[in-house]
Amino acid sequence: MNKKNIAIIGLGYVGLPLAISFVKKNFNVFGYDIDKSKIKELKNCHDRTNEIEKKSLKNLRKINFVSRINYLKKCNIFIITVPTPVDKNNIPDLRSLIDATNLVSRCIKPLDLVVYESTVYPGTTTEICGNILEKKTNLKISNNTLSKKEKNLFYLGYSPERINPGDRVHNLQNVCKLVSASSEAGVKLVKDLYKKICKNIHICSSIEIAESAKIIENTQRDLNIALINELQMIFEKMNINIYDVLDAAKTKWNFLNFQPGLVGGHCIGVDPYYLTYKAKKIGHKPKLILAGRYINDEMPNYFKKKILNLIKKKFNKKVNLLFMGLTFKENCNDLRNSKNLELCSLLSKDFLVDAYDPNMRMNNFKKIEKKINFINKIKKKYDVIIIALPHNNFIKMGFNNIKKLLKKNGIIFDLKNTFGKFFIS
Amino acid sequence: MNKKNIAIIGLGYVGLPLAISFVKKNFNVFGYDIDKSKIKELKNCHDRTNEIEKKSLKNLRKINFVSRINYLKKCNIFIITVPTPVDKNNIPDLRSLIDATNLVSRCIKPLDLVVYESTVYPGTTTEICGNILEKKTNLKISNNTLSKKEKNLFYLGYSPERINPGDRVHNLQNVCKLVSASSEAGVKLVKDLYKKICKNIHICSSIEIAESAKIIENTQRDLNIALINELQMIFEKMNINIYDVLDAAKTKWNFLNFQPGLVGGHCIGVDPYYLTYKAKKIGHKPKLILAGRYINDEMPNYFKKKILNLIKKKFNKKVNLLFMGLTFKENCNDLRNSKNLELCSLLSKDFLVDAYDPNMRMNNFKKIEKKINFINKIKKKYDVIIIALPHNNFIKMGFNNIKKLLKKNGIIFDLKNTFGKFFIS
Repeated sequence: MNKKNIAIIGLGYVGLPLAISFVKKNFNVFGYDIDKSKIKELKNCHDRTNEIEKKSLKNLRKINFVSRINYLKKCNIFIITVPTPVDKNNIPDLRSLIDATNLVSRCIKPLDLVVYESTVYPGTTTEICGNILEKKTNLKISNNTLSKKEKNLFYLGYSPERINPGDRVHNLQNVCKLVSASSEAGVKLVKDLYKKICKNIHICSSIEIAESAKIIENTQRDLNIALINELQMIFEKMNINIYDVLDAAKTKWNFLNFQPGLVGGHCIGVDPYYLTYKAKKIGHKPKLILAGRYINDEMPNYFKKKILNLIKKKFNKKVNLLFMGLTFKENCNDLRNSKNLELCSLLSKDFLVDAYDPNMRMNNFKKIEKKINFINKIKKKYDVIIIALPHNNFIKMGFNNIKKLLKKNGIIFDLKNTFGKFFIS
Repeated sequence: MNKKNIAIIGLGYVGLPLAISFVKKNFNVFGYDIDKSKIKELKNCHDRTNEIEKKSLKNLRKINFVSRINYLKKCNIFIITVPTPVDKNNIPDLRSLIDATNLVSRCIKPLDLVVYESTVYPGTTTEICGNILEKKTNLKISNNTLSKKEKNLFYLGYSPERINPGDRVHNLQNVCKLVSASSEAGVKLVKDLYKKICKNIHICSSIEIAESAKIIENTQRDLNIALINELQMIFEKMNINIYDVLDAAKTKWNFLNFQPGLVGGHCIGVDPYYLTYKAKKIGHKPKLILAGRYINDEMPNYFKKKILNLIKKKFNKKVNLLFMGLTFKENCNDLRNSKNLELCSLLSKDFLVDAYDPNMRMNNFKKIEKKINFINKIKKKYDVIIIALPHNNFIKMGFNNIKKLLKKNGIIFDLKNTFGKFFIS
């Protein structure tokens, strides 16, 4: 097995660490991405997700970063790690997954292994991806009843990624890896493959079990944050500080210490919609999960109203506003589905907004949000400052230094309670 | 302080361990309960909740168990530990709390301390209980602005109980105790009082914070179980075993290992309604919390339908059914708001049901549910056996012994997956 060639399709948060792990174990790895500029960057040892340092990539000259299909035809193992987002109506957008599957269908040969790592709703891997691969290749998906002599088959597996961007503690090596496949022989292949790079493996008895396990993890997290957000709304009406309540509640041994906040990004805010899509399709309306999603999606509006009301009470004039922290969560440079960006954009309809996030280059976003003035350096004073995220950079700056950026009688909104001074100017 | 007299009003899961703890620290304790038969039992060293052993009560001859108010007039500290249930429309039923407050109002003197431990919605302690006490006594609730010379006042405190019935690990002594009061002087009194019996104290900055912290703890637990129940419904439609999915999901470091099941009892299924009642009263409809409650309240019906469908598929005749486990949760003898009893009752409309629970004497319940035949010993064989709870007694019996109680071609429903054989006959 060791000498087989692995193709990794999609080189983002998931694919790139995976490619590096396999290269370290002496596999011959072909890292493919449809985005040619990303391939160019990676060849120059730059990872735009900031997960992998330049010198790590320099030391790993053995990965073949490719954007042409020909290279993949030498491979026997195909691992698909493309994004699975939702469209503007929150319907699963499987285009990247299907494109990647079509690509693989042009490369696989009998007895090859295809493993999906992308988050999907239960049934996707077999019914959609497996089906495409069978139809386009005339190969059959292996199963336990096919004769052992049958050679005209391929192995289909699913092993969901559990990458937590920005988390250096829980990584590919030490987080338990779920593996599954369409047949026992397939399970053995997938298990042996991931055993080379992961310490702990859990075998799921079907692909659907592994798909389901993955999809409920972020659904649970999303719902728990939604609950705290709903509590924040209730307690605000009673003038009770949610953070004081949480500080008290968390002294109980089994209280789960979630915090209120904006849920965005490409996982927690998206994965539940995959599950609800499938649930509705089979005739079950998942009211609870959707109620949680509704709250979390409404939070930018909620914060906007809250901020607007306080500003109106305090100022009679036109105010200028500094919005600090735009990424979907702290200490990353990822703007995908960022609810902080959404809130900033909502505020820019009523205020002159300068937006600042030291974690990313602002230049690229000027086009997207024309009303927001993206700045790379804070050069003046503001009536209103919104600290949207607990970026390490902001914590290092300190509350007093941020306060110096405030005009006399200004207000600071500390949305994530970064400085323990929630909504206090 | 040590030599003061403490009255504990309400001697159930909360009040009795509290009374015992204070007696052990040499306080003079008067344990009051409105239920005279309970007082008689306690005098005979019997605790009907099974939390306190007979010999522990025998060794504690110093508690004064009383059902007459005169005894309480000697007390300086009043701790109210009465139940706060909901009525049949899930509206908070504060009658016991108000009755206890009226009782205390006839006993308190200037500078006395009144502490509530009952779970309530934020505002109850001050606005309802405090208000009654002020009106009926002409004493004032202490606050930080009242002159120090003012003697015509009493101290009002709130310190929510965190008792987990049946749990011998997390107890009054070692679980952090939240304390709060209407004034700083009051906080000091409450803190010093509980410091005698609890290792860790957390001071809340207001009574409302402490009330809120308590009410969200079980709300969070309820919602998490509701999510798993909703997932069970979704996955069942896809023929995916929820327990296999949970086994896989819990291998992730931050997955919360909740299990599907019936949420009943006097805490988890009730507390959220206190919060939603208050939320609605102040104009916020808590859709998420209510969606969770709705699911959990619907679970007996869901299970009934599931069981009915399977029985209809398998049998053409009238079947007899053994229902094992009736209490609201495993290893207790508490039937209050038991969803297992509710399910049993639902099934008794369609089947001949024998109900068996070795944790409680059945005789008392024959009147309540006339259609159910409560039995103290299993004497015959059944077409259908439902194992509703993972009582230790059932685990000791073992699956094979339970199976012996089954007629040929019978079905066993293992509702809580006690034997890892969910819904397998």
